[in-house]
Amino acid sequence: MAESLENPRSGAKAAALDRYAEAGVDIVAGNAAVARYRDVLAGWRHPDQLDAIGGFAGLFRMPGDGERALVASTDGVGTKVLIAGELGRYGGVGRDLVNHCVNDILVCNATPLFFLDYLAVGRLDPDAAAEIVSGCADACRAHDCALLGGETAEMPGLYARDHFDLAGTIVGMVRVDAIPDVTTVAAGDAIVGLPAIGLHTNGYSLARALIPRPEWGEPFGDTTYADALLAEHPSYYRAVRAIQAVATVKTMAHITGGGLLDNVSRTLPRSCKAIFEQQRWRVPPLEAELVRRGNLDFEDRYRVLNMGIGYTLVVPFTEAPAALEVVPGAVVIGWIESRAEGDPAVVIHPARNER
Amino acid sequence: MAESLENPRSGAKAAALDRYAEAGVDIVAGNAAVARYRDVLAGWRHPDQLDAIGGFAGLFRMPGDGERALVASTDGVGTKVLIAGELGRYGGVGRDLVNHCVNDILVCNATPLFFLDYLAVGRLDPDAAAEIVSGCADACRAHDCALLGGETAEMPGLYARDHFDLAGTIVGMVRVDAIPDVTTVAAGDAIVGLPAIGLHTNGYSLARALIPRPEWGEPFGDTTYADALLAEHPSYYRAVRAIQAVATVKTMAHITGGGLLDNVSRTLPRSCKAIFEQQRWRVPPLEAELVRRGNLDFEDRYRVLNMGIGYTLVVPFTEAPAALEVVPGAVVIGWIESRAEGDPAVVIHPARNER
Repeated sequence: MAESLENPRSGAKAAALDRYAEAGVDIVAGNAAVARYRDVLAGWRHPDQLDAIGGFAGLFRMPGDGERALVASTDGVGTKVLIAGELGRYGGVGRDLVNHCVNDILVCNATPLFFLDYLAVGRLDPDAAAEIVSGCADACRAHDCALLGGETAEMPGLYARDHFDLAGTIVGMVRVDAIPDVTTVAAGDAIVGLPAIGLHTNGYSLARALIPRPEWGEPFGDTTYADALLAEHPSYYRAVRAIQAVATVKTMAHITGGGLLDNVSRTLPRSCKAIFEQQRWRVPPLEAELVRRGNLDFEDRYRVLNMGIGYTLVVPFTEAPAALEVVPGAVVIGWIESRAEGDPAVVIHPARNER
Repeated sequence: MAESLENPRSGAKAAALDRYAEAGVDIVAGNAAVARYRDVLAGWRHPDQLDAIGGFAGLFRMPGDGERALVASTDGVGTKVLIAGELGRYGGVGRDLVNHCVNDILVCNATPLFFLDYLAVGRLDPDAAAEIVSGCADACRAHDCALLGGETAEMPGLYARDHFDLAGTIVGMVRVDAIPDVTTVAAGDAIVGLPAIGLHTNGYSLARALIPRPEWGEPFGDTTYADALLAEHPSYYRAVRAIQAVATVKTMAHITGGGLLDNVSRTLPRSCKAIFEQQRWRVPPLEAELVRRGNLDFEDRYRVLNMGIGYTLVVPFTEAPAALEVVPGAVVIGWIESRAEGDPAVVIHPARNER
């Protein structure tokens, strides 16, 4: 779904999906809100604001410095917080949040500088709060990123006694000449996919509707539903830097709400489309289970869920083997073709047993 | 209350107050959380992080630039959102939030660069969301600050259908040699106070407990309780810049949660204390009403409420008249004295009729 490139706003978008709407997330309203935001913001744009790539982060020219830009993004972890709160497992959501934000600005090729968190609670439990902030601190430190501050708000009446919400903002930096240029993408380029680990931070309203609370403690494959649902959103920072050292990375996408269909399309030139072949990678068990339980149609799967791919990179065809070699689990999941008028920006060919 | 200067975290502090606790805000837990955060963050500090002043914002050395620092702060508007939501008046909270953030980094003398919002809702109403973001955009533009991005999250199950939460992060810039130096504060300096307009963004859990919903539409002085409660948090940016043009500003404080007692003390050297004389300014009607209804004791009033002062500046005694001349409503509300071992950092002399 299109969103204002000039003022990236995520979350309100996500998928046009019946199952999702039944779970309480209204995509029509989301699209309407994004359109209204565009109107609100149409009146004025700061002269130091640069065009963002696909709306994952905002770009701001470093004042008095023609060579560098600041890159910022705000995000939350969605209703994953309800599962974490219910199970009293707080550390993971802090890492989820920081890693999500790191990946968002990585699409602009930015290196993290600092992060600030917002933690809102119904009743402040110092141990739980410390565990959440500690998770943020761990993930910040792993990226040599300062945890520069934060706000903890106790808001009775807005949050139920044991509920909390968690959001955060990251600021990074990039050389202006190192900002990915989507116009370099060309037919024949390969698309490398990096494996997702669980749902990351999207689709939890749907997952909670399809896998009810009483089942969370039950075994699920080698693990439990709880463990599978709370699997941590990985950072792709080191993998991307490793690939950039051996291959030309033309454009990237972080596969969040909107899935492969919406996120990849936002980072392509109008002249190109992305073709994915689902048989080239394995759909993880939790996603497969949600597809089965929700009887999700093909389009729905690839809008609400990541379906096993967390991050994509477009590289020249001949350089793809080098990229795969440096990142275990990386797979060529598709390629770029010329896009004719009226073609969709993203096509996903199902695996044979899914047709 | 002390908080980590190295990692400013606000909100969890606020006041040690029985009435506040009855309203659902637990100060003992807040203090415990801040102590736990300090432990969490004690292990590592990014080398580019600078000491913050009073914990209003975080400071980060601009990479590759010895002369400037980035200044960032995250904040929310507290349970003022419940009043705004209940009354369907959404525009003000966006301005409240941005102005709050502007004032927080202004304590470090920072000029705003960009802002990002986080809006979480139970059910997405595109009109309400656009009104909130429009309020943010207005206040950003008034400060020549980019609204660089944001996140809108629809989170059924966490937020009630018509509830929302709003938080935001601002990033500004300051020359390192223009960061206020609290050690320049000396006995005999004057403290200039800038008038508050209503409760700003603090004390709303208490206010909602003392002024119940059915009364909001009723007249209150020249206005209604609703209007008084939703009065917008002003920005002190222009007033401070005007005063800096005519007087030496040594240190400043934004009077948020914690009131004059906690916020001013955080911006003084250990060798100094602040003496305020309440008879030098007028306590606004809404604060007076809350004091009356809640039978708030003196200490309580000055920890949970701003009591009519929104921002303070310490200037040399002889330069105070020039400061007052350029900002209508500015008043000398107190002065600096030497602080002996064991003295409180802030003393407030009540007005005669309050003793």
